[in-house]
Amino acid sequence: MTAAWVLHALPGDNARTLRVQSAAKLTGTEMETKLLKNAPKKGTSPTNKLPALWKGSDGCAAFSSVSAMKLLARAADGADSKFLGGADAATKAEVDQWMEYAVDVLDPLAEVACLKAGTSLAKVAGDAADEVTARSTKALVDEVCAVVDKKLRKASYLVGDALTFADVAVASALVGPLRSAIEAKPRQSKLSNVSRWFETILKESSMDACLESPFSFYAGKAAQAAAAGEAAAKAAAKATSITGAAMGAEQVPMGKLFKRSHSRVKDILETDSKTAVGKTVSVCGWARTVRSAGKGSLAFVELNDGSCQASLQVVCSAQDTTNFDQLVGAGGVGSSHRFVGTLVAPQRAEQAIELKADIVEVLGTVDPKEYPLSKTGNKSAGHSVEFLREQAHLRARTNLIACVARVRNACAFAIHDFFRLQGFQYVHTPIITASDCEGAGEMMAVTTMLGKAEENKGKLPTVTAELAKKYALDDPNTKLKEGDVDYTKDFFSKPAFLTVSGQLNVETYACALSDVYTFGPTFRAENSHTSRHLAEFWMVEPELCFASLKDDIDLAEDFIKYCTQYVLKNCAADIDYFEKHTEEGLRDRLLNVVDTPFKRLSYTEAIEILNKPEHLKTEDGSARFEEHPAWGIDLGSEHERYLCEKVFKGPVVLTDYPADIKAFYMRQNELDKEGRLTVQAMDILVPRIGELVGGSAREERLGLLEKRITDMNLKPEDFSWYCDLRRFGTVPHAGFGLGFDRFVMFVTGIANIRDVIPFPRYPGVCAF
Amino acid sequence: MTAAWVLHALPGDNARTLRVQSAAKLTGTEMETKLLKNAPKKGTSPTNKLPALWKGSDGCAAFSSVSAMKLLARAADGADSKFLGGADAATKAEVDQWMEYAVDVLDPLAEVACLKAGTSLAKVAGDAADEVTARSTKALVDEVCAVVDKKLRKASYLVGDALTFADVAVASALVGPLRSAIEAKPRQSKLSNVSRWFETILKESSMDACLESPFSFYAGKAAQAAAAGEAAAKAAAKATSITGAAMGAEQVPMGKLFKRSHSRVKDILETDSKTAVGKTVSVCGWARTVRSAGKGSLAFVELNDGSCQASLQVVCSAQDTTNFDQLVGAGGVGSSHRFVGTLVAPQRAEQAIELKADIVEVLGTVDPKEYPLSKTGNKSAGHSVEFLREQAHLRARTNLIACVARVRNACAFAIHDFFRLQGFQYVHTPIITASDCEGAGEMMAVTTMLGKAEENKGKLPTVTAELAKKYALDDPNTKLKEGDVDYTKDFFSKPAFLTVSGQLNVETYACALSDVYTFGPTFRAENSHTSRHLAEFWMVEPELCFASLKDDIDLAEDFIKYCTQYVLKNCAADIDYFEKHTEEGLRDRLLNVVDTPFKRLSYTEAIEILNKPEHLKTEDGSARFEEHPAWGIDLGSEHERYLCEKVFKGPVVLTDYPADIKAFYMRQNELDKEGRLTVQAMDILVPRIGELVGGSAREERLGLLEKRITDMNLKPEDFSWYCDLRRFGTVPHAGFGLGFDRFVMFVTGIANIRDVIPFPRYPGVCAF
Repeated sequence: MTAAWVLHALPGDNARTLRVQSAAKLTGTEMETKLLKNAPKKGTSPTNKLPALWKGSDGCAAFSSVSAMKLLARAADGADSKFLGGADAATKAEVDQWMEYAVDVLDPLAEVACLKAGTSLAKVAGDAADEVTARSTKALVDEVCAVVDKKLRKASYLVGDALTFADVAVASALVGPLRSAIEAKPRQSKLSNVSRWFETILKESSMDACLESPFSFYAGKAAQAAAAGEAAAKAAAKATSITGAAMGAEQVPMGKLFKRSHSRVKDILETDSKTAVGKTVSVCGWARTVRSAGKGSLAFVELNDGSCQASLQVVCSAQDTTNFDQLVGAGGVGSSHRFVGTLVAPQRAEQAIELKADIVEVLGTVDPKEYPLSKTGNKSAGHSVEFLREQAHLRARTNLIACVARVRNACAFAIHDFFRLQGFQYVHTPIITASDCEGAGEMMAVTTMLGKAEENKGKLPTVTAELAKKYALDDPNTKLKEGDVDYTKDFFSKPAFLTVSGQLNVETYACALSDVYTFGPTFRAENSHTSRHLAEFWMVEPELCFASLKDDIDLAEDFIKYCTQYVLKNCAADIDYFEKHTEEGLRDRLLNVVDTPFKRLSYTEAIEILNKPEHLKTEDGSARFEEHPAWGIDLGSEHERYLCEKVFKGPVVLTDYPADIKAFYMRQNELDKEGRLTVQAMDILVPRIGELVGGSAREERLGLLEKRITDMNLKPEDFSWYCDLRRFGTVPHAGFGLGFDRFVMFVTGIANIRDVIPFPRYPGVCAF
Repeated sequence: MTAAWVLHALPGDNARTLRVQSAAKLTGTEMETKLLKNAPKKGTSPTNKLPALWKGSDGCAAFSSVSAMKLLARAADGADSKFLGGADAATKAEVDQWMEYAVDVLDPLAEVACLKAGTSLAKVAGDAADEVTARSTKALVDEVCAVVDKKLRKASYLVGDALTFADVAVASALVGPLRSAIEAKPRQSKLSNVSRWFETILKESSMDACLESPFSFYAGKAAQAAAAGEAAAKAAAKATSITGAAMGAEQVPMGKLFKRSHSRVKDILETDSKTAVGKTVSVCGWARTVRSAGKGSLAFVELNDGSCQASLQVVCSAQDTTNFDQLVGAGGVGSSHRFVGTLVAPQRAEQAIELKADIVEVLGTVDPKEYPLSKTGNKSAGHSVEFLREQAHLRARTNLIACVARVRNACAFAIHDFFRLQGFQYVHTPIITASDCEGAGEMMAVTTMLGKAEENKGKLPTVTAELAKKYALDDPNTKLKEGDVDYTKDFFSKPAFLTVSGQLNVETYACALSDVYTFGPTFRAENSHTSRHLAEFWMVEPELCFASLKDDIDLAEDFIKYCTQYVLKNCAADIDYFEKHTEEGLRDRLLNVVDTPFKRLSYTEAIEILNKPEHLKTEDGSARFEEHPAWGIDLGSEHERYLCEKVFKGPVVLTDYPADIKAFYMRQNELDKEGRLTVQAMDILVPRIGELVGGSAREERLGLLEKRITDMNLKPEDFSWYCDLRRFGTVPHAGFGLGFDRFVMFVTGIANIRDVIPFPRYPGVCAF
């Protein structure tokens, strides 16, 4: 049959086009290929997938490459049974599946793997394209190896013992990305069966002849942007998995200007070693260890660039590595280098890949006698965490602190990601504040008057009798009396402090935007030297409107689980390190948190439990707790940890605390049966840490709030703006605070909070 | 043929299973269905997609529903031609395409659209599932309407004039998500042709009988998590577009506990109105306007919940709305409510949808005489921005400030997203610092001594002669002399300040992790009242190692473009608002920034340009600039804005500034031809704002850095830790700082920096 068939194809859409062209040649069909700039409008076909096969001017006959191939086979005498699997239903099914596989699985991977050839995809996927390219190439090789190569171990063709469209469909997907790889190393590669088959198919299928057509593979212009975007998305879904982050945000292309001048160690180690071997790369970093061998003619450098926990082994030799002598004289541990060389399979299989250096450029030397971290070669085990704190400007060069830094980074991102997906807006609440929501004694003051005090031998400006009169005239409510420090001379003209919580401020935005959160530094001037307190720490504080305490707890539980899981998934190697060096069983503890519903009970129930004889006393009959757990006490760490570590063996949420031990803004319950006032507070307690989250429903009833402010001897005028939120369109709302640094302790197993923040501040210490 | 066929299917995977079951019934094939908990290992088929059809114990015969259907048809006498399109190649091709379409396009959408039925997908896609569900349902309806319904306008079946597998494949995808919708309103819906066809197909195809099998639609257990994840990803790719954010991060499922008790206005307005009409919803928010009509028997409420710029019109009537009287008495603008009602098409088509309220629950009233924002009904045009600043706790309830808040939130997320995709780690640099990198005069002190000073009539502890001796003995380098303020009595035992920049600190982490950034509050005690300065503001400061000034500029340009584009795409409605109320032509200005390569030139070249006669003087011959642009001056805002607004009409990057006007840590160039010393600094200037970014390559050469520290009269001992980074394994590195609040001004067109941060702090003002 030689009717006038026309194939409409997008420029650059070559695997699909090639497939149909090859099918036309095989079936002896005369077919012309026309390149379209845009996909045609939908015809009688459900989809408008190109290539589309038309017959004469009859309109569209078959969209999509597989449909078109089948149509050609069926329309040509005998080609149907020859190329589509014969008369046997089972064999036809096999061909069907391979064709489907080529289009569904291989095409998207192949298309993105071809990015480097400079296709319009680059425009869609942007600079992240390189990453996708690498991943897709790897994914494609893995896929082909596991499925196609395996099938071909004992067979010459994919289906039966002759060429079918199964072979054509699969081979055409591989021409672009793998041809050179397959042909270059036919035997060596793990694709050896594919290689053999591939050469045969290219000839038999006339595909080689089709390639002479005026296409260069995947080099089309922007016309297929839409199709390409879809392919990139599919490939990304394949190569990694799609994060929920994809939902609800519009894609923004990455710019193309910034290119690293070197490969990152993480990217090298994550590349399939078979793909990586033979590549020339440039790598930069710091030497974690330098080992000499061969009587000084060889040097092995463990090079770390902080991109991941693992280091890359670099092999240098006097014979082959330019500047070898400079490397030897660079001082070893801590020295910095750029290496250019070839990735090779290692002699001993500790890692999958190592670098054989052709050139070393010493960027920075060290004097091992001076370098604080030199002695034990950066193995933090060799330096106490206390010692490392004194070297806070260098300690990120140790494995321990670098792992913490990466996990901390992941936690912070997870937080923003979680709230974005939940539709919350991030609000920057102020750091310097004039309001003092929890008692001034614990706050740090911010001032510009100390400079003057230094010149004036420690004297601050004070209010004279004359000034006191003037101030009183200006403002009858002035708090400035004779002899007081004269804050009108200070930067803000009144006392100002560092915030202890963004909550009151963030509530103002919640009462306009419904769902918000703040994430920023907070400060306490408590003079305490514990492993769980800092003077400067970071807090996450969401606030949600039209919500109850239950909503608040639900959100907090989802939140903790999400962030924990994000770390488990994205920092696996760092968690491995902590497992080994910090807390055995860490991963199981975290998985338990993710998998177990948090136990919820009221404070009153918790007190009842603690007062059971078996809990109140230890086995030898002595009191278990230093403080007796009587109703009304503020539970101590001993009670909290006992509840979650011993009684419930997992996270516990306590609710409805006595009003007397909680803040003024918490929503009041009805009096309980015994006439006691509780508030709708909740604390989440976790093993090892104790309290991780504290939250509450907020008192939205103006009268009750105002009464409570005066009952607690707070000054109503300080909170008038806060009461305005209830005065004007009040709404039920709730929120919580999570100590971010404690959360990092929680997911890393690090015992002291001073080691999870880059530069810890506590009484007497403010270094760097 | 009645051999013993077995279908292996995942529980809950019902569209696919149903399709094959229906095919078996139609072809008269005896087939048993077995539910598997896991997908089987790969057999002879390339994919292991379930359902899989097996024949006896022969092994796998066909994976995937389409292959299985075809196999059944081909294996049964006559069914091939009956259900697969007859003998005609073109008709077969049509059936092929519809089957492909059902699997590729409809199945993924349908599966996610069924989430509400409580499938395991919810576990995968999590709570964001609701959003995806809504989007997918809409996408599915749109798709079916555009393709299937259209096809059926003039036809009773999808292919030819009898039932084929095309109908079965498509109908089975729709049973779950659309059955009730289609059956409920057969005529009214835009799916009227589909409705008619659907009823026929269900009967003819025996699908109804198959549904009696022990499946409940899409209600399977976790077994198909993997398959479901893929479907969710595909559907998400369909419903929205995939952000680059998907790359490089592992997916984390969202928890299922937290559910909003109400629909968000944004979600309602974004739902296709045809889909939304008739739904019963609960909505909460604040009244932006309340309009009375019908002699008081009607009330129209513009309800805003902050989730988007637009409000939802709610129609209440004395007759139909419970608690109507309470609404009328609630005070109007600013009052808060929960409405329950039905979404209806509006009488006048200002919006696509409005709510007819059955019930109103007044949550919070206002007294219009007291409410500061009442008069002009929240239209910020009616309240000056100056007035609104005094009401900072309420101003987010205006359109203007709410739009700013949403854009600020988007900018912040874009920043984290950009750096994550580029492989940078987020580092929390300290807020309180003992180091003073740019001159103490501008810093605010942090202290706990002021409390004592108040009791002591303004006296701070000072160093006595005795103490001075003791301190000198303890530490010969002590700076405390007799008469000085005795900082050993302060919280940190020495003077402490609020940071002016995280740069020096973040460099310590860069010199360990290679690529890092900090994003946090910074402080200046400058006594300036300009529209571009705050005492407390947020800064983004990336630092990249093994990088040059060019790399730094490339990164900054990509960064600015990425964040700008993120806002354009994700805050389109807010940008519309600013276009209308703040800056005409805003969108074009931003698009210009995104599309135009930034002009790059040296400071020296810029000076030469400014000194050209046409620039130096205005048309009337007078001097254009207040300060003459001589080489060596620190360019003023007048020069910077002239360069980017008049000369280059877009962003400009100036490089290589005179060393004398730049900081000590910037990398020194060789002396220029005229013997002048410049440093590798760069500033990015943008129209309207002037300097947006300042950065530099850092001096990594220890000797040169130390010399410059002493040359500039800084104390070497203050910077010894900073010099350590060069002493031990120094590396070339660079970085920049971007004033976050200025960036928000830049993308919103807001003229005063005090209006882009929730609670602005400047000299004399620290309210709330």
